[in-house]
Amino acid sequence: MFKINENYLKLPGSYLFSTIGKKVKEYALANPDKKIIRLGIGDVTLPLAPAVIDALHVAVDEMARKETFKGYAPDLGYEFLRSAIAEQDYKSRGVTIATDEIFVSDGAKSDSANIQEIFGENNKIAVCDPVYPVYVDSNVMAGRTGEYLVDSGKWTNVIYMPCTKENNFAPELPKENPDIIYLCFPNNPTGATITKDELQKWVDYANKVGAVIIYDAAYEAYISEENIPHTIYECDGSKTCAIEIRSYSKNAGFTGTRLGFTVVPKKLKCGDVMLNSLWARRHGTKFNGAPYIMQAAGAAIYSEEGKKQTKEQIAYYMNNAKVIREGLKSAGYCVSGGVNAPYIWLETPRSLTSWEFFDYLLSNANVVGTPGSGFGPNGEGYFRLTAFGTYESTLEAIERIKSL
Amino acid sequence: MFKINENYLKLPGSYLFSTIGKKVKEYALANPDKKIIRLGIGDVTLPLAPAVIDALHVAVDEMARKETFKGYAPDLGYEFLRSAIAEQDYKSRGVTIATDEIFVSDGAKSDSANIQEIFGENNKIAVCDPVYPVYVDSNVMAGRTGEYLVDSGKWTNVIYMPCTKENNFAPELPKENPDIIYLCFPNNPTGATITKDELQKWVDYANKVGAVIIYDAAYEAYISEENIPHTIYECDGSKTCAIEIRSYSKNAGFTGTRLGFTVVPKKLKCGDVMLNSLWARRHGTKFNGAPYIMQAAGAAIYSEEGKKQTKEQIAYYMNNAKVIREGLKSAGYCVSGGVNAPYIWLETPRSLTSWEFFDYLLSNANVVGTPGSGFGPNGEGYFRLTAFGTYESTLEAIERIKSL
Repeated sequence: MFKINENYLKLPGSYLFSTIGKKVKEYALANPDKKIIRLGIGDVTLPLAPAVIDALHVAVDEMARKETFKGYAPDLGYEFLRSAIAEQDYKSRGVTIATDEIFVSDGAKSDSANIQEIFGENNKIAVCDPVYPVYVDSNVMAGRTGEYLVDSGKWTNVIYMPCTKENNFAPELPKENPDIIYLCFPNNPTGATITKDELQKWVDYANKVGAVIIYDAAYEAYISEENIPHTIYECDGSKTCAIEIRSYSKNAGFTGTRLGFTVVPKKLKCGDVMLNSLWARRHGTKFNGAPYIMQAAGAAIYSEEGKKQTKEQIAYYMNNAKVIREGLKSAGYCVSGGVNAPYIWLETPRSLTSWEFFDYLLSNANVVGTPGSGFGPNGEGYFRLTAFGTYESTLEAIERIKSL
Repeated sequence: MFKINENYLKLPGSYLFSTIGKKVKEYALANPDKKIIRLGIGDVTLPLAPAVIDALHVAVDEMARKETFKGYAPDLGYEFLRSAIAEQDYKSRGVTIATDEIFVSDGAKSDSANIQEIFGENNKIAVCDPVYPVYVDSNVMAGRTGEYLVDSGKWTNVIYMPCTKENNFAPELPKENPDIIYLCFPNNPTGATITKDELQKWVDYANKVGAVIIYDAAYEAYISEENIPHTIYECDGSKTCAIEIRSYSKNAGFTGTRLGFTVVPKKLKCGDVMLNSLWARRHGTKFNGAPYIMQAAGAAIYSEEGKKQTKEQIAYYMNNAKVIREGLKSAGYCVSGGVNAPYIWLETPRSLTSWEFFDYLLSNANVVGTPGSGFGPNGEGYFRLTAFGTYESTLEAIERIKSL
């Protein structure tokens, strides 16, 4: 008789955004006259940039002709895209990454969920609290996290690194040494960043204790301030301890187009074994490449027009972030984030729980946000709003919240 | 100190097709004047059908306008595609599959590799021998297969079901009861099929012993004979024991476009737990949907034009299959397959091993095929050719082989 993966049964409830989706759907059905504004899920609203659209059409036409048709893509992704990444995401910042250290994928969510598969079951992970749920959930599924304690909202075998107002939402080095450390900067959900010097401390720590850092840099394009690292490879010694995950979802609106990449340096080893080889093997066995059409579209982001146009999109969203941040501040809310990240993190008023505030905001302002507690126990009492709406709806949402 | 997934180190060599790719590359570099014909990997050569191209352009234009732009896709896939699948792949064959039993993905390779994740580690798998390597390799990575025995080319904890000339390449029910049974019909690599009555025996067996069947029906569009089931759900009782994996790679040329789907019936349970819920959870946590553009292209396959055009593509490839099959027969080879499948399975001549014949064919006819031993111990002494080349190159390849 077949046996299921019992670890799945340990997962409390459904994936955060599915729950939010259901709640909003129910409210909308019961209140068809209300105009709901969604600032919850981190989904973009601007159409793809013209340079990307042009590249898509060209690639589609290539797929229509025998002479230019493309079948299976190379395992790691097309050389033209990996070269552009190596050149423009890394070399331009003084970092040398070889093209065979870059693995093109269908996005950062898949990669950040799948990367744990190349590690043994007996690794202890450390995560920020609050945190993007995928890091923890994928490790739960793999049986690495112990048991879930309903009262604390914590897993018995996970090291939590609190990110609170007190430490400016920047985690401190854990007291117990982890094996795998998940870091995300600019941070989802808090919008916080750390400086290059602070990140260097993490790299030094990881090298010292033999931990590997899974560095999620999905929001690097939103960095506006100096001295905030765009890649962990700006830090000395990072190639012996860090894997970096990148996305085109937020910097180029690819949420529904699906493209991203992961860097696994060849210097990153466990004994003689390169993690690069393990990830290459997983990529070759459990994945079959991102579509050629999407990789061609991804390369267009690196063209002069593409860069200019996606920069404008980011500026548009960051203006929304400003509207949210300043609007909420003027309404007396305590807010952070929104300067180097498209996320605004606010304290719920009147000691409401995160889900109470979610319901309150949905019912009274018809605005959807994300309850902070959905990201971990230390997210309780907080709430996330995203800057990915349209300017008009963002403005209206904030006006509605202000008039509550 | 972090620990790697030691199971990866057990995998012998690299993924079969990477090895072939390297060998061919080396030969081509050393012999730049030779025109190599590739009938090895199952990659298609015809461009995408005009109906698919049109749908791609329309979808790209939708992504260019604010009003029609699509962000994150629904977890299970767009309703429009799942409805088309339910209607045209199943209802048309008298099978009722609900749309929430269908999970759209980036292809059958990913799904067939990932599906094992929802099962516990302590399941014993049964596979045909020879077999598509992904089923075994993904289970090796998950630690389910025991140790690899170099001499026999077998894993200690896998049940092998020999498919040889003696049993007409159709597996017999195993003597030891497995928990998970992988079946693929029409078969890759042998091109063999089984009748509906024969498949019914497998369904009855699985229900009796409490096994689950992972049914890979990626090649169903190539079935030309009557009484060969197009889906396992044509069999009585299949919904309590079978998961079906389907692909658009071979029936519509989507190898480099990436789209497929998996059906997990809600009746398929372990105790109270629906496998459908587990797969939904995995889909929602470790995957972020297939691109909207690709799902729109997938739906176009179900249009009248799309059906007509993809049927013509299949006829084109099946004509190649005939050329290969009859050409090799007339040259004295012992061949099977190629009637309901795009694969031709031949016995190597003069007791050559599969890899010896690979080298012989590459060097003397400049034709690339796939060594049967790469698919399992019982593939030794066999060789796979695919019908996915152009008509002209297929014809030339066979002429070259005939004149050896």
